[in-house]
Amino acid sequence: MIADSAGGQARGAITAPLRIGIAGLGTVGAGLVKLLRGNETIVAARAGRPITITAVAARDRTRDRGVDLSGLTWHDDAAALATDPDVDVVVELIGGAEGVARRLVTTALEAGRPVVTANKALIAVHGAELAALAERAGVPLMFEAAVAGGIPAIKTVREGLAADRLTRVGGILNGTCNYIMTAMRESGRPFADVLAEAQALGYAEADPSTDVDGIDAAHKLAILAGLAFGRPVAFASVHVEGIRGIDALDLDFARALGYRIKLLGLARRRDDGVEARVHPCLVPEKAPIAQVDGVFNAVVVEGAFVGRLMLEGRGAGEGPTATAVAADLIDVARGSAVPVWGRSADGLTQIEALPRTAFHEEYYLRLNVHDRPGVIADVTAVLRDHGVSLRSMLQHGRADAVPQDGTAGDPSVPLVLVTHRTRESAMMEALGRIAALSAVIGAPAMIRIDPG
Amino acid sequence: MIADSAGGQARGAITAPLRIGIAGLGTVGAGLVKLLRGNETIVAARAGRPITITAVAARDRTRDRGVDLSGLTWHDDAAALATDPDVDVVVELIGGAEGVARRLVTTALEAGRPVVTANKALIAVHGAELAALAERAGVPLMFEAAVAGGIPAIKTVREGLAADRLTRVGGILNGTCNYIMTAMRESGRPFADVLAEAQALGYAEADPSTDVDGIDAAHKLAILAGLAFGRPVAFASVHVEGIRGIDALDLDFARALGYRIKLLGLARRRDDGVEARVHPCLVPEKAPIAQVDGVFNAVVVEGAFVGRLMLEGRGAGEGPTATAVAADLIDVARGSAVPVWGRSADGLTQIEALPRTAFHEEYYLRLNVHDRPGVIADVTAVLRDHGVSLRSMLQHGRADAVPQDGTAGDPSVPLVLVTHRTRESAMMEALGRIAALSAVIGAPAMIRIDPG
Repeated sequence: MIADSAGGQARGAITAPLRIGIAGLGTVGAGLVKLLRGNETIVAARAGRPITITAVAARDRTRDRGVDLSGLTWHDDAAALATDPDVDVVVELIGGAEGVARRLVTTALEAGRPVVTANKALIAVHGAELAALAERAGVPLMFEAAVAGGIPAIKTVREGLAADRLTRVGGILNGTCNYIMTAMRESGRPFADVLAEAQALGYAEADPSTDVDGIDAAHKLAILAGLAFGRPVAFASVHVEGIRGIDALDLDFARALGYRIKLLGLARRRDDGVEARVHPCLVPEKAPIAQVDGVFNAVVVEGAFVGRLMLEGRGAGEGPTATAVAADLIDVARGSAVPVWGRSADGLTQIEALPRTAFHEEYYLRLNVHDRPGVIADVTAVLRDHGVSLRSMLQHGRADAVPQDGTAGDPSVPLVLVTHRTRESAMMEALGRIAALSAVIGAPAMIRIDPG
Repeated sequence: MIADSAGGQARGAITAPLRIGIAGLGTVGAGLVKLLRGNETIVAARAGRPITITAVAARDRTRDRGVDLSGLTWHDDAAALATDPDVDVVVELIGGAEGVARRLVTTALEAGRPVVTANKALIAVHGAELAALAERAGVPLMFEAAVAGGIPAIKTVREGLAADRLTRVGGILNGTCNYIMTAMRESGRPFADVLAEAQALGYAEADPSTDVDGIDAAHKLAILAGLAFGRPVAFASVHVEGIRGIDALDLDFARALGYRIKLLGLARRRDDGVEARVHPCLVPEKAPIAQVDGVFNAVVVEGAFVGRLMLEGRGAGEGPTATAVAADLIDVARGSAVPVWGRSADGLTQIEALPRTAFHEEYYLRLNVHDRPGVIADVTAVLRDHGVSLRSMLQHGRADAVPQDGTAGDPSVPLVLVTHRTRESAMMEALGRIAALSAVIGAPAMIRIDPG
């Protein structure tokens, strides 16, 4: 009865083509054109009606994108798509939290027009206000492609696990970082070399900072956390560290200790709030997520009833991302009615993630120390003073493996310590004092340990 | 505009509680009661309105199920739920392709009442006709819990990947078999011992045949194949082999060759039709699916655009399965309008899966042979005659490892052969002749090899 008056009726009523306008014709935009044309019959059958492209917006009309754009209305100003009378749904593939993308999406929603976007920065930063706009207008705002490309992570968290109290969400959310760290581990080469190779192969941008500094993963994590916990997480409160500080030495020591190093996004529900952070982690090499290598992404979700779920697949690229955009379009065509953050935006305020000082973890520490008596006693005394207890210690006489900052003449060696679970505030204080010890050269490296 | 007239309107219009009646109060039914009550606030927020249980049907009123059922209408005849005026949605958790479950679902759909079920046998066997019924009535028929428990496999294939041309779907679909084969591999114990242990632990039923003979996995595979390829696959055409024939020796040899043995469901789209089959497979030990052990399930999907996706999680049990049922209920509460098989059932006829003779695989063969000159020449001559080429061969003088059917006095040894890719029809003919050789004792064991 109920479904008859809602979905059933809508299904019968709507058979006209869904007309879309695409803003941004980069890799994903061109991929979407190919997908909607190549799979035209499949898409129409699934959507219950054809999905046709009527308009596009991009700056350069002359560039060959490998797709035929003749017959489409071309807008130089993307914002014009929001009011084009032949456009039912706006697809925003421009990117960026501000500027044209934000203007287009805002205008479209204000005009009562559904929006499908792949823009993780926009949703992570402005998702709360955009959700309010969309729900005021009664139109969907969809962003499956914003997180983990071809993996339907948004749909899984927002719909598939909608009934459960989720306690944790996260995973390997940036394929560029995972590619770089996999290649560093397998080849033993330093970060800079592998990054240059990734850039040459097209896996990393000319300006790699959004990827390697963890920003991209943090955008995705903030979105996943918002969906998992039912309200958006303030992006500025997400703790973010990238992978520039990972030395090839750390990958070696991690292996010796039975771990791999992954850049993870981690969001956890705690009694006192929500953690949301992105940083490198040591994960046990037997953990399923440790096996996810190269450009692949993995999303892990844990809930009180469902237990633990892992989804693994291609997190970027033309085909996978276009698949996600098109799935959203099919949902819109069918009249999907899922609220942006999984529940009504009425009075849905952002939450702040807990600060770094509230974290509790096990820690891997690597110090570069002068090879002389008493060093270990000094370091462990500081840890003891701050209530940090040690689980294991590794010291190799590996002079050849000392980083560039080792001083000549006074041989220095790496000293690796693994702690039991400790408050990060205590760890930070202890590390400050350890760095100041005369026997310690340079800044200590600290990597958190996650059970995976 | 479009979504406003469909989902938007529906969202605004419906706020009354969704009243459900649950037929079957076994593990999943009791779990659903716990979930809907324990997560009442979350569920109401996600569904846009409360979901309340008004009626139940089960045979035994006296059994303690760990949940309070007072105040609910109790029907001795489950079919009465289909017409109870206080029930908006029927939840069928009885199980079985025929009998009460089929009658209840049919009656409910005919009465224009949405149905949510966890019944894999019913959907696999009667899914085509039930879809026609549901769509004629304009009501949803949902079955996320029928496949892979807590993994949202149905939603992923039917909605998340709706735009792609899927080429393959399958995976580890039965946790009991995966538990048994993991335990056999880790302990070296034979099938019968491990099965008895699984029964004692509650991982296997007293009558284990639905699980260990592959029927349960085949039900799930048929459903996944139907969703992936957009039309139901005739269950009777699915080729099914279980795990009773796997000897501890095979697990040893698989390991020596760099493989693990898993019971896999495999459905593939080919130019000449669709393959749908369940049988044990050797998979390379490095393949992600080879790492999925114990009671865990994994669903693998491949598409032309999305590439390869793997979903891993708990495939059974009270919590995970209840989560899937409740997610369907939330979709129904929101007015979801996804057709049963992902596209309109109008004129949607079942397809027959290709017969076994059309398979092309690599094969692992284990023969028990008399240890005397000329045996290998005889066996390889037969394979050559049938165009089967060999990739590798293993022969150990392991008299202690010979199965029970080795004859005393004339020492026999296992001979293992791995073939290149071959038509299964040729393999079947060759195996018939090999089994008839005087030097070969008992029936040869044949296990297909899958790249994972």
